[in-house]
Amino acid sequence: MFTHETLIRVGYTDTDQMGYLHHSKYVVYCETARIEAMREMGTCYKEIEDSGIFMPVISMKFNFIKPAFYDELLTVKTILREIPRARMKFEYEFYNESGALINTAEVTLAFINNKTRRPCFPSELLLESLNKYFLVKELEG
Amino acid sequence: MFTHETLIRVGYTDTDQMGYLHHSKYVVYCETARIEAMREMGTCYKEIEDSGIFMPVISMKFNFIKPAFYDELLTVKTILREIPRARMKFEYEFYNESGALINTAEVTLAFINNKTRRPCFPSELLLESLNKYFLVKELEG
Amino acid sequence: MFTHETLIRVGYTDTDQMGYLHHSKYVVYCETARIEAMREMGTCYKEIEDSGIFMPVISMKFNFIKPAFYDELLTVKTILREIPRARMKFEYEFYNESGALINTAEVTLAFINNKTRRPCFPSELLLESLNKYFLVKELEG
Amino acid sequence: MFTHETLIRVGYTDTDQMGYLHHSKYVVYCETARIEAMREMGTCYKEIEDSGIFMPVISMKFNFIKPAFYDELLTVKTILREIPRARMKFEYEFYNESGALINTAEVTLAFINNKTRRPCFPSELLLESLNKYFLVKELEG
Repeated sequence: MFTHETLIRVGYTDTDQMGYLHHSKYVVYCETARIEAMREMGTCYKEIEDSGIFMPVISMKFNFIKPAFYDELLTVKTILREIPRARMKFEYEFYNESGALINTAEVTLAFINNKTRRPCFPSELLLESLNKYFLVKELEG
Repeated sequence: MFTHETLIRVGYTDTDQMGYLHHSKYVVYCETARIEAMREMGTCYKEIEDSGIFMPVISMKFNFIKPAFYDELLTVKTILREIPRARMKFEYEFYNESGALINTAEVTLAFINNKTRRPCFPSELLLESLNKYFLVKELEG
Repeated sequence: MFTHETLIRVGYTDTDQMGYLHHSKYVVYCETARIEAMREMGTCYKEIEDSGIFMPVISMKFNFIKPAFYDELLTVKTILREIPRARMKFEYEFYNESGALINTAEVTLAFINNKTRRPCFPSELLLESLNKYFLVKELEG
Repeated sequence: MFTHETLIRVGYTDTDQMGYLHHSKYVVYCETARIEAMREMGTCYKEIEDSGIFMPVISMKFNFIKPAFYDELLTVKTILREIPRARMKFEYEFYNESGALINTAEVTLAFINNKTRRPCFPSELLLESLNKYFLVKELEG
């Protein structure tokens, strides 16, 4: 299992007239957190894309537990439970400054060859960087 | 059952460097479609909010089937299968110009009293406007 | 001179916690209006891009006169006063539902060859479609 | 004079299909930089708003010199040259990772009483926090 925490400050433009962080912005915050998580893993999403693989999102779900407000510093926890095969599923937990869980989410991405625009295997770059976080057993399982 | 179709043109700023409509923008398009669907029902979300009820999103899920591209005119079908009680669940189907189904989604909203910030019953305004789309039986069921 | 009017409804996600249309969204609305204006001229921005020319924004300025609010149907007037040479300057006027002028803007774009990423002449496609709106004199001037 | 530097990473959703940071996102980055600059000054925009003063943007202009790309870590320099009276004008310089100046901007805000929605004087909170950056002479000038 790999986990990573990213701090994200709620911007003014991310609020709506309810005074809440708009629900569409959680999707963007997950993307920011995922990119930082991958950077920590030792692979950079930009390098994956430069190597010819796109990773479009193929499904996502979000549960909103409590609202978030302007200027709050949220902790976004990114969790990867399994070595990706055809798909890579990230789970997320959002915590506010009081430590309350305010949102949970799951975002699943595919691997697409950017020339053929067809599904492909995960980048070697990515798999290598994941080895250190998962036991060989998990790889063989 | 109530259904409604809204046409939405994919904007340039909604694309990303893959050349795809970014996945976070489907959430915004659902909101636009929902507001137009409610306007057709005979209730305006603005009126509901002015009457003291907020409708925050409490959960959402999206399945991405095919990408959408810049300048495509998408048809977003909004479906309401049940009279809302504590919650109001909207289903969505996105079609591209060739008529292919490219995305399905579900977005569920709650009713919140904007003074107490506590859950409340659906606005009378909303329920009245829904009567004509649902049989009395459904109301009694 | 070429002028065009586009109607744009203020979306919920476009508001901020002041209850105003966020100032960054006027930039996006100008883009939407510009693309519709070009479509009416007889040229589609997508076709220009497909023909190998990008049109990045090189400068912009905005004056905010009155705020706009959620669900208002704004009229965005797009004005092109001159045949573009190296640059194409669009002017904008935003009107609210009461007909009050709420914003004025100027957005200037360049023509870039998408292979060399160097400045280039305006697309023939674009110039031809503009002929009918500008006198020959203007072209010669 | 007060200056402040904020680092902002270009997000994937902030790019468009040209592969550039979309021009509307510079407006958002300026807002993020401004809020961090004010935090460093010793005043928090949230506190100003909580004290009953809104600061809407009344004008802005942007010059785009070079494009910015996905995953670049930009340095946004925020400059305040004068103690605000009726208005507060921020200037911005954007630098990419190679240190090249890629954008300059000016954003001017007003002070609005959030009850009367009329212009008002700058928050005492804000003026006090600025004293240490500006000479008394400047204040008297």
